[in-house]
Amino acid sequence: MKTKKILLSEHEMPTAWYNIVADMPNKPMPALDPRTKKPVTAEAMGRIFGEELVKQEMSTERYIEIPDQVQDLYKIWRPTPVVRAYNLERMLDTPAKIYFKNEGTSPAGSHKPNTAIPQAYYNAKQGIKYLSTETGGGQWGSAMALACQYFNIDLRVYMVKVSYHQKPYRKLLMNAWGADVIPSPSTTTQAGRDILAHDPECSGNLGIAISEAVEIALAHGETTRYCLGSVMNHVLLHQTVIGEEAIRQMEIAGDEPDIVIGCFGGGSNFAGIGFPFLRRNLCEGKKTRIIAVEPASCPKLTRGEFQYDFGDTAGMTPLMPMYTLGHDFQPADIHAGGLRYHGAGPIVSQLYKDGLIEAQSVPQLETFAAGMMFAKSEGIIPAPESTHAIAVAIREAQRAKEEGTPKTILFNLSGHGLIDLYAYEQYFEHKLTDYNVPDEVIRKSLDSLDKIIR
Amino acid sequence: MKTKKILLSEHEMPTAWYNIVADMPNKPMPALDPRTKKPVTAEAMGRIFGEELVKQEMSTERYIEIPDQVQDLYKIWRPTPVVRAYNLERMLDTPAKIYFKNEGTSPAGSHKPNTAIPQAYYNAKQGIKYLSTETGGGQWGSAMALACQYFNIDLRVYMVKVSYHQKPYRKLLMNAWGADVIPSPSTTTQAGRDILAHDPECSGNLGIAISEAVEIALAHGETTRYCLGSVMNHVLLHQTVIGEEAIRQMEIAGDEPDIVIGCFGGGSNFAGIGFPFLRRNLCEGKKTRIIAVEPASCPKLTRGEFQYDFGDTAGMTPLMPMYTLGHDFQPADIHAGGLRYHGAGPIVSQLYKDGLIEAQSVPQLETFAAGMMFAKSEGIIPAPESTHAIAVAIREAQRAKEEGTPKTILFNLSGHGLIDLYAYEQYFEHKLTDYNVPDEVIRKSLDSLDKIIR
Repeated sequence: MKTKKILLSEHEMPTAWYNIVADMPNKPMPALDPRTKKPVTAEAMGRIFGEELVKQEMSTERYIEIPDQVQDLYKIWRPTPVVRAYNLERMLDTPAKIYFKNEGTSPAGSHKPNTAIPQAYYNAKQGIKYLSTETGGGQWGSAMALACQYFNIDLRVYMVKVSYHQKPYRKLLMNAWGADVIPSPSTTTQAGRDILAHDPECSGNLGIAISEAVEIALAHGETTRYCLGSVMNHVLLHQTVIGEEAIRQMEIAGDEPDIVIGCFGGGSNFAGIGFPFLRRNLCEGKKTRIIAVEPASCPKLTRGEFQYDFGDTAGMTPLMPMYTLGHDFQPADIHAGGLRYHGAGPIVSQLYKDGLIEAQSVPQLETFAAGMMFAKSEGIIPAPESTHAIAVAIREAQRAKEEGTPKTILFNLSGHGLIDLYAYEQYFEHKLTDYNVPDEVIRKSLDSLDKIIR
Repeated sequence: MKTKKILLSEHEMPTAWYNIVADMPNKPMPALDPRTKKPVTAEAMGRIFGEELVKQEMSTERYIEIPDQVQDLYKIWRPTPVVRAYNLERMLDTPAKIYFKNEGTSPAGSHKPNTAIPQAYYNAKQGIKYLSTETGGGQWGSAMALACQYFNIDLRVYMVKVSYHQKPYRKLLMNAWGADVIPSPSTTTQAGRDILAHDPECSGNLGIAISEAVEIALAHGETTRYCLGSVMNHVLLHQTVIGEEAIRQMEIAGDEPDIVIGCFGGGSNFAGIGFPFLRRNLCEGKKTRIIAVEPASCPKLTRGEFQYDFGDTAGMTPLMPMYTLGHDFQPADIHAGGLRYHGAGPIVSQLYKDGLIEAQSVPQLETFAAGMMFAKSEGIIPAPESTHAIAVAIREAQRAKEEGTPKTILFNLSGHGLIDLYAYEQYFEHKLTDYNVPDEVIRKSLDSLDKIIR
C-alpha cells in the first residue's frame, strides 16, 4: 500500500533555526530611522521588541539554536506531516507528484505558533509581563495568545475592527487562551482616538492596529514589549522549522522537489518552507524553483517597486528597503486577510531582486476554486491564504501535464479554514468578486479549473 | 528531552476492526420488530442499511478486515497521536500520568470519519448512489459528507433545526463537501409535514431527524439507503481503530493504562477507545478500568433502566434492549449535542449490566471548567463532548493525588471545539447553566477545579 503521510518522530525535529542572511549573496540594506535617515540601532529596536529577538533580527549567524523549552512546546503539534496529495493528482490527471506540508495541525490552526512560542519565551526570559500585538484575520493573535499563556504573559491584541465583527470565533479563541482583544481603532490609544475623532465609523486596518499596539507597548515601560508575526527576520527564521523538516521528509519519500510554493503576505510561511530549500540552491548548487504566491489584488512583488517605504500606514515604523505598493495602499477586502499587506519586507525583497526566488499572483476566485478542489480531493478545508499556494501548485501540475514533464511539487498548507467558512459560503453563493483584476484574467484562470471540476 | 507524542507510521495501522460481540460473556439480546415482537431479520434491516453493514451488524467474528481503499482514506489523518499531557499533569500537581488519544486531527475534526468512510465505501460497492442521514450538532453529518464525496454518493443530511441555525459553520462544512443539508423538521417528508402541521415553530430533535432520513431512504428504492453514526454494532466496531492504535502506542510509551475513559452519547467514541482494552480484560486477564462519561442531564447509564425501548422519539425503529431514560425523554439543551441521546445501545448496555465497564456522569459546568484547563495546559480547545472525558480524567488524577497512588490514565479526545466556540463564549459570560442537576452537585464538582485554576 502507498505511503501517504511522511512523519518524523520528535527526535528528528530540527534543533536550530536557519538564518538565510548568512548565505545571501547581497545582504539586505538596513532599515532607516525616518528622521535621521541613519540605520536603526539595536538600542532603538530594543525599546519596542524583546532583547534577544533584536539580536536575532541583526544576526548573521547561519544557525540559531532552539531553546529546549521552545522545542518542548513545539512538540504539542510538531513535527508536522508532509502529505502526498494522491487524490488531487488523480483529480488533475497530472504526471506531477504533489506534496504538501500541513502546518494547519497546530492548536491555533496555522504556522503562526512556530514564532509565537519563541517570541513569548524570549520576552518572558527578559522579565516581560505584558505584550501587545495586532492581528488582522486573527491567526497571528490567536497563536500569540496560545503562546503567552505558557509564560504567564498578559497579551493585548488590537484586532482590525472589521475582522473583529466578521470573525467572532477567532476573537473567542484568543479569549479562551486568556488574551484581551480590542477592536481597532479604539479609544485606548492616542492613535486610535485621533482616527475615531476624524472618522467615528472607521473599520480599521493593519496599519492602524500596529500603531495602537506599538503605542501601548512604548507607553508601559520596562515590563512591556510589542511583538509581530511576519515581515522581520527574527520572525521568518523561526518559521524555518517548516522547511528543515520538509527537507528530511522529502528525503524519506525519496523525492526531490522541483518546485516549492508558499503563499505570501509578510513572508513568514513562505520563508518557513522556502528558505531552507533556498539554502541548498545557494550552498549546494541545487536548482529548486521557489515561488511566492500573492493575491492579484495586492501584488507587491509582481507589480510593486523596490524602494524605501514605511512598514505601516501611518508612517511610524522605520523605513525599509522593499518591494511595495506604497504604505498608503489600501488592499482590497479579500478573504485572505493574512496576505493584505503592502510591502514584501527587506529579505524577501532582496532575494526577489536578485532573481533567487519567483513570484506569481492569483485572482481571488481562482484561489477559492483551487481550495474547493483541494477540499474535495484531500479532504481538508484550506485557509483562504493557503489556497493561493494550492492554486499555483495546480497551475504547475497542469503545466507539467501539458508539457508531459513529470515534476515534483511541494507546497506549504499554512493553515486550515475551519474558522473561515464564512468566506466559502460567499464563494458558494457567488458573492465573491475579484478586485483590481481584469475580467479576462479571472476568466482565463477559472476556465482551466472548471474543466477539471466538471 | 521527553517524548510528548507517540506516533505510529502508516504501516503500523490496524488492518482489522475488532468486534467485541465475539468475546462478550453474555451476548446482547436481539432487537425486536415492534409489531411482531420477533427479532428483526437481516432482510428487514437491509431495506434501510447497506448489505455488508447489516452483515457486520449481525457478525460474531472477532475481527473484520479493513478494505484497502478504506485504509488508504484513513491515511488522510490516521494513525492519530497518543499524547502525554505533561502540562495538564503539572497544572494538577498529580502523580498520575495522563495520556490522550487525539481524534480531533481528522479533516472533520472528530472520530466520526472512522465509520463514515467504510459506510460510504460499502454502500458504493453495492451500487448505492444516494444516502440519507441525520445530524444534531453536525459532527456526524460533516464526516459523512466528507466520506460520500470520495465515492460519488449524493448525501442528504437532516440537521436538527436549532443546530442548523446555531452552528452555521457546521452546515457550511457539509456544503463544502457537497452534501445537501435540510433543517429538520422539514416539508420534504410526511413525518416532517405532520410535525409542522401540529407545531409550525418546532425546533426539531434527533428523533424527528431520524424519522425524516429513514422515510426518504425507504421512499427512494434500490439505489438509496440510510446510515447513522453511533449506537449500532457496525458503527462501534469501525471505531475500534482508535483503541487498537492506542494499545500499540501505550506499549511504545512503556506504560500500562489503569483507566481508559471516553465520553458517551451513542457509544461510538467510547467503544472505539474502550473495546480493544476491554478485550484484554476479557481474554488476557488485565484489569483496566473502562469508564463511560455521560452528561448529568442525560444520565442513561447511571440513572436509566435496562429495558426494551425505541431508538427514536417517534417509535419507528426496532425495539432495543438497553439502558434508557425513555424514548420520549427530552434531553436538556446542553452544548455537548453528541451526548444528547436517551439510550445506551444494546452492546454497551449489556457490558454495563454485566459490570464489565463503569459509568460516571458530570454536570455541564464541570465539563467546561475541565475543557478550559485542558485548553490552557495542552493548547487544544476540546469539543464540548470531549470535555466530559477530560473532566473524569481530572477527577481520577485528583483522586490519585489524594490517595498518593500513581495511576496511568488514558482518555479519548474525540474532537476539537473550534466550531463550538460559541459554547465557550457562553461559559465565559456565565450564561451556561446545568439542567436537572442539584446545585450542591455542581458546586462540589466546581469547587475542586476552582482551587487548581486559581
